[in-house]
Amino acid sequence: MLGRKSHAEGKVAVDFCGQAEATSCHPSVDSGCRLSMESHASPRPGGLSYCVAFSQLLGLTVVAVTGAWLGLYRGGIAWESALQFNVHPLCMVIGLIFLQGDALLVYRVFRNEAKRTTKILHGLLHGFAFIIALVGLVAVFDYHRKKGYADLYSLHSWCGILAFVLYVVQWLVGFSFFLFPGASFSLRSRYRPLHIFFGASIFLLSVGTALLGLKEALLFKLGTKYSMFEPEGVLANVLGLLLAGFALVVLYILTRTEWKRPPQAEEQALSMDFKTLTEGDSPSSQ
Amino acid sequence: MLGRKSHAEGKVAVDFCGQAEATSCHPSVDSGCRLSMESHASPRPGGLSYCVAFSQLLGLTVVAVTGAWLGLYRGGIAWESALQFNVHPLCMVIGLIFLQGDALLVYRVFRNEAKRTTKILHGLLHGFAFIIALVGLVAVFDYHRKKGYADLYSLHSWCGILAFVLYVVQWLVGFSFFLFPGASFSLRSRYRPLHIFFGASIFLLSVGTALLGLKEALLFKLGTKYSMFEPEGVLANVLGLLLAGFALVVLYILTRTEWKRPPQAEEQALSMDFKTLTEGDSPSSQ
Repeated sequence: MLGRKSHAEGKVAVDFCGQAEATSCHPSVDSGCRLSMESHASPRPGGLSYCVAFSQLLGLTVVAVTGAWLGLYRGGIAWESALQFNVHPLCMVIGLIFLQGDALLVYRVFRNEAKRTTKILHGLLHGFAFIIALVGLVAVFDYHRKKGYADLYSLHSWCGILAFVLYVVQWLVGFSFFLFPGASFSLRSRYRPLHIFFGASIFLLSVGTALLGLKEALLFKLGTKYSMFEPEGVLANVLGLLLAGFALVVLYILTRTEWKRPPQAEEQALSMDFKTLTEGDSPSSQ
Repeated sequence: MLGRKSHAEGKVAVDFCGQAEATSCHPSVDSGCRLSMESHASPRPGGLSYCVAFSQLLGLTVVAVTGAWLGLYRGGIAWESALQFNVHPLCMVIGLIFLQGDALLVYRVFRNEAKRTTKILHGLLHGFAFIIALVGLVAVFDYHRKKGYADLYSLHSWCGILAFVLYVVQWLVGFSFFLFPGASFSLRSRYRPLHIFFGASIFLLSVGTALLGLKEALLFKLGTKYSMFEPEGVLANVLGLLLAGFALVVLYILTRTEWKRPPQAEEQALSMDFKTLTEGDSPSSQ
């Protein structure tokens, strides 16, 4: 609550001070501008670093445990032979869980970098995630084709294909709105909350899909032996809890109000300039 | 963005105007207070009603499709006989999905009711959800005992028991902080963001657990026939997508900034009074 209040104070100070605040506000005279300048200093909140470190520890553990599960109980990984299937879970966990989660955190971690640099890193991480996930998808469809198995019949595959299609659409729309220079400031502002909501939703859907896939793999192989607390079953259950834990820590970092990236002084001045030019609004009339 | 700005403006106006704004501000003189009074009027945003209606349609469809699945393909429901198992999915979907989701929406739907009334309704809905979920849990443990099946070996059961324990803890802590009159204003303010985050997380974990349970029930019964697009498999997949859809619509309503419940004038005045009394702060010094 305290953080939300401070964030709100910073925003309204901009509305009250307009473009001038970035260059000519005097803290001792104008309390609104003083609050705004405080928000621009944006020191990294203490808890954020620990939480991001914890998310990375969890994310890397998820990747390591997935590798250990495939290595110990599924014979490892290869593109040719029956081991091709195992490329699928490893690639999806690295791409659509770990890298996608990290791409969502970029704006929290690089709070004081130029926005364009942060945007490019966000887009690049999502790009890498897409390529790795695509390899994982090709692996499972190719494996099914060679074995003569049916495609896209299970809830795991329905959720997975939905998540992947939404991921590609989100990347393309995000690229054309935020990196391609055509979209207006007003259009970007209206689309941004939707982009953030769908980004988090696609990430959660990806984690849910991974849990369904893990369960499917266990039941197909272990069957009723699953209920005898077989070591593979226990390890996979732990992996499932780690996946859910990673999702919740990423969601916590994303949603904590006072950890949101504060707009930099020059961004606010530029955006208000642009808004005034394109929409004829005076900042003080807001 | 527009909504967030208007919400922020309302908040800061309170900081600038303090308690007086609720009774003595003159709109034509004080623009900060004018903004604050606008936020207190809090007309229901147009999109909110449609979104809430859509969430209820989805939620009721989820309950109806669960009932249809159990009736058409699992022989219906009874407490005695092998049908006792079927009490479990129906109760968990009604309690920990539909009622829990609706309890989260109470503060968005009843925007202009007194806060205490809304709180009691929120607590009551969670109470009903807890009782119905408890019946669902007793049903499955009793069924396992009668059949001699092992308990708590699967990822579904691990996630489910975690979600249920967290749900009970969250209810008890929430009750003692927000309904029991002992907690201070400051303590409530600090705990509120955590309560909201854990509430949403437990709801998401409950939906993920339901998807895992659905998948488990399908694979145990259908086995390899699942890949032949059996009608039961297709219906259950559709149910899975409906469950995920309900979760995302609830999450959307919860996270849309301009749909958050604006504080009522008397609540702000009272809370500022209380804050001043308990912490010695002057509202204007914030």
